[in-house]
Amino acid sequence: MDARTYIERHRGEFVAALKDWLSIPSVSADPLRAGDVRRSAEWLVAHLTEAGFPTAEVWETAGAPAVFAEWPAEDPAAPSVLVYGHHDVQPADLADGWHTDPFVPVEQGDRLVGRGASDDKGQVLFHALGLRALLAASGAAAPPVTVKLLVEGEEESGSPHFPDLLRRNRDRLACDAVVVSDTTMWAADTPSMCVGMRGMTDCQVDVYGPATDLHSGSFGGAVPNPARGLADLLSGLHGADGRVAVPGFYDGVAEVTPQEREMIARLPFDEAAWLRTAGSTAASGEAGYSTLERVWVRPTAEINGMWSGHTGAGSKTIVPRSAHAKVSFRLVPGQDPLHVQERFRAYVADRLPAGLRVEVEFAGPGVRACASDISSIVGGPPSAADPGGPFGGGAAVRAARAAMQRAFGTEVLFTREGGSGPEADLADILAAPLVFLAVGLNDDRIHAPNEKVEIPLLLKGAESAAHLWTELAAHAAGARS
Amino acid sequence: MDARTYIERHRGEFVAALKDWLSIPSVSADPLRAGDVRRSAEWLVAHLTEAGFPTAEVWETAGAPAVFAEWPAEDPAAPSVLVYGHHDVQPADLADGWHTDPFVPVEQGDRLVGRGASDDKGQVLFHALGLRALLAASGAAAPPVTVKLLVEGEEESGSPHFPDLLRRNRDRLACDAVVVSDTTMWAADTPSMCVGMRGMTDCQVDVYGPATDLHSGSFGGAVPNPARGLADLLSGLHGADGRVAVPGFYDGVAEVTPQEREMIARLPFDEAAWLRTAGSTAASGEAGYSTLERVWVRPTAEINGMWSGHTGAGSKTIVPRSAHAKVSFRLVPGQDPLHVQERFRAYVADRLPAGLRVEVEFAGPGVRACASDISSIVGGPPSAADPGGPFGGGAAVRAARAAMQRAFGTEVLFTREGGSGPEADLADILAAPLVFLAVGLNDDRIHAPNEKVEIPLLLKGAESAAHLWTELAAHAAGARS
Repeated sequence: MDARTYIERHRGEFVAALKDWLSIPSVSADPLRAGDVRRSAEWLVAHLTEAGFPTAEVWETAGAPAVFAEWPAEDPAAPSVLVYGHHDVQPADLADGWHTDPFVPVEQGDRLVGRGASDDKGQVLFHALGLRALLAASGAAAPPVTVKLLVEGEEESGSPHFPDLLRRNRDRLACDAVVVSDTTMWAADTPSMCVGMRGMTDCQVDVYGPATDLHSGSFGGAVPNPARGLADLLSGLHGADGRVAVPGFYDGVAEVTPQEREMIARLPFDEAAWLRTAGSTAASGEAGYSTLERVWVRPTAEINGMWSGHTGAGSKTIVPRSAHAKVSFRLVPGQDPLHVQERFRAYVADRLPAGLRVEVEFAGPGVRACASDISSIVGGPPSAADPGGPFGGGAAVRAARAAMQRAFGTEVLFTREGGSGPEADLADILAAPLVFLAVGLNDDRIHAPNEKVEIPLLLKGAESAAHLWTELAAHAAGARS
Repeated sequence: MDARTYIERHRGEFVAALKDWLSIPSVSADPLRAGDVRRSAEWLVAHLTEAGFPTAEVWETAGAPAVFAEWPAEDPAAPSVLVYGHHDVQPADLADGWHTDPFVPVEQGDRLVGRGASDDKGQVLFHALGLRALLAASGAAAPPVTVKLLVEGEEESGSPHFPDLLRRNRDRLACDAVVVSDTTMWAADTPSMCVGMRGMTDCQVDVYGPATDLHSGSFGGAVPNPARGLADLLSGLHGADGRVAVPGFYDGVAEVTPQEREMIARLPFDEAAWLRTAGSTAASGEAGYSTLERVWVRPTAEINGMWSGHTGAGSKTIVPRSAHAKVSFRLVPGQDPLHVQERFRAYVADRLPAGLRVEVEFAGPGVRACASDISSIVGGPPSAADPGGPFGGGAAVRAARAAMQRAFGTEVLFTREGGSGPEADLADILAAPLVFLAVGLNDDRIHAPNEKVEIPLLLKGAESAAHLWTELAAHAAGARS
């Protein structure tokens, strides 16, 4: 029985298990749900044990528990691959606009509706099914590479204890590649792989001027106005070409290769539809880049909020005593968040006029961007950050793409994501190349009411996962030969 | 008996009357005090009648009542002069930090403490004493010019019905000069006359972008950010030289004359002390002008407030859907508020990028600046707005200055005020030159707890007022000869 047949025969069993798991409201952001997050971890340990994983255990953190599982290859010299996902979910309440109870999952035709169906329980679970399918098809007792799973419980809360978890368990997590199953494809009929996520660092800027709000009749025009100082700082963030004008901001930026730009351009992107989704009447941004390039492969500076002085009804003609802004930077591979922070602080200090004082407070060290090395596919230079090993030089992506293409029967294109996740920590701390294998869709309404997943796509995900281990073994062998 | 002796002998009676008036809490901003504002008007009518004014009456408005009084000259060909003041007061409450009940006036040495003592009841009342002193000294039955008083009851509420009052009663208010007694002198030992007040117009700017707040990971850098659009607009308000960069903003501006700049420079201005009062660590503003010039004779643009997107704790990485600011412009003589409004709208429209929409809403038609014509004193060209007549060409200022110099026995310098009042309406609607005669001090704590007035200065005000009518008659005769 081939993998696909195995998977189709086990569809009912798979969906029933997923519904069972989805009925546990593992909302990591809600302290009252801590017990549910633990139940969710225990459920997964039981499920993976039942699926045959020789090791499956709950891992404690200073916050919510994670799950670790391992199925070693028979050949002790075989490479190891770590699958990353998360078992916690976004908050959800019927009152938010759900048509059904978010934690009573329901099938609607080929769709399964419930919080976590797509993000990320469905995509974690297809790995167990995929591995079972591979073993059923091959008749082997173990996968051709050692398969490890790390499923954290705090992703929807910013993964505050994840780097610590990785560092403490570096030995048991040691791997030659990391497979991330927590993203989306371009469309149901356009299978694709994410090959990079932007990083981020964000701060609050506080500009202080006079000791109190001043009457603008008596003082206006003769003392520095913090709101004007802040407007100057914010306006100066960008040049006329849309580039970020903070000196040194682009230091280290890995320019996207012409080959990847060509891959991006092949995606059937409907800018008008995208603008309708954005609710914006015009696209704009860095000169020389398309809209998709602007949100995927280019770093940005964005004003997320600002406030100063009188913000109520009517007039209050003051020189305000202070002005404030929230500013965030999206980063691309090669950019060091701490360097960006230092450059922004210098920019602010250089620009502020006498009589104003400024404080810049970053929310934390920031998140590095991460990217798969796709050089072996698009023919560009290898990623500077490529850690090498059996899956270096883009071999992991080549293998995963081959696996997805076998499952979907069509070419798999490349996308990126504009947002940030804990993936860079995986690549950095475990020193392994990243590859993204996921089947979510942008219209799955993750983080919104009525989250759903397309069951046929989850099954394609399982089939991709079934092929993944043999493809990886083959590509690793190729890499070592 | 000369005027000074008369005034000194009537000090006790004057202070007792003022205390009586100050005990009426004529707070125009408080609807519950409407009856008190009316009692205050009636009190003044009785007082002026008792002082000998042949006409003294309450004038109704759509809001709080004003008081009108008239004492005609014997010579029907004599010029008429209108004194402007107000009988309403700022709100005051013991809990605000008053050491004594704001409406139970108390003498503390030479000071009288109570709401309205300086602003403006004390300064209205000295006119009655001054006129009595003049008649006692001259033995005449009437002043040498027709004296009219208009004492409004809504100045502390923005004088909403004042222009209408002026227009409806233009005939009875007809005059050849307007004496405003509602300002301050430079210092007790540096008597001075205000010779101008800035005008003002203010607005709210609303910039709209995407239909909703957008996730900056998914959309940031590819759609126009309203906060950035607003920052660009606000930053562009000024050039590097501190000048307002709105094209056409300076149209019509009456440049201050070198002679008046020299008069301003003669004031003993302590910039370090001024900065301490402002609570600012540096002065700044339009290049080529001193601090006093910046707040008195130069027009400005000021950001009074702004808000956009996320303004709470922590991070929210969004492209905000809108951004807002409060912007006000201080105006100088020659500037038309409506023209400034039109120029600012054009500036905003010209600068806004595609994808953003903006609305600019001005609070009203704005307030014109006003200025006395001091050309006859400083030797500059006459004011372009000078309506001429017996007191045109600076004659009113020359007469009032001579009157003050006789009372104070020293040179009277010139100041201006950076704020706005209803004075421009008086000059415009009555088509008469303005002159400011007042003895308040900047440390009288008007609009603040523990407002006080220096009784000796009120008596100097009365003496100045006593001389004013003869000086005006003399200068008018000179003008007609």
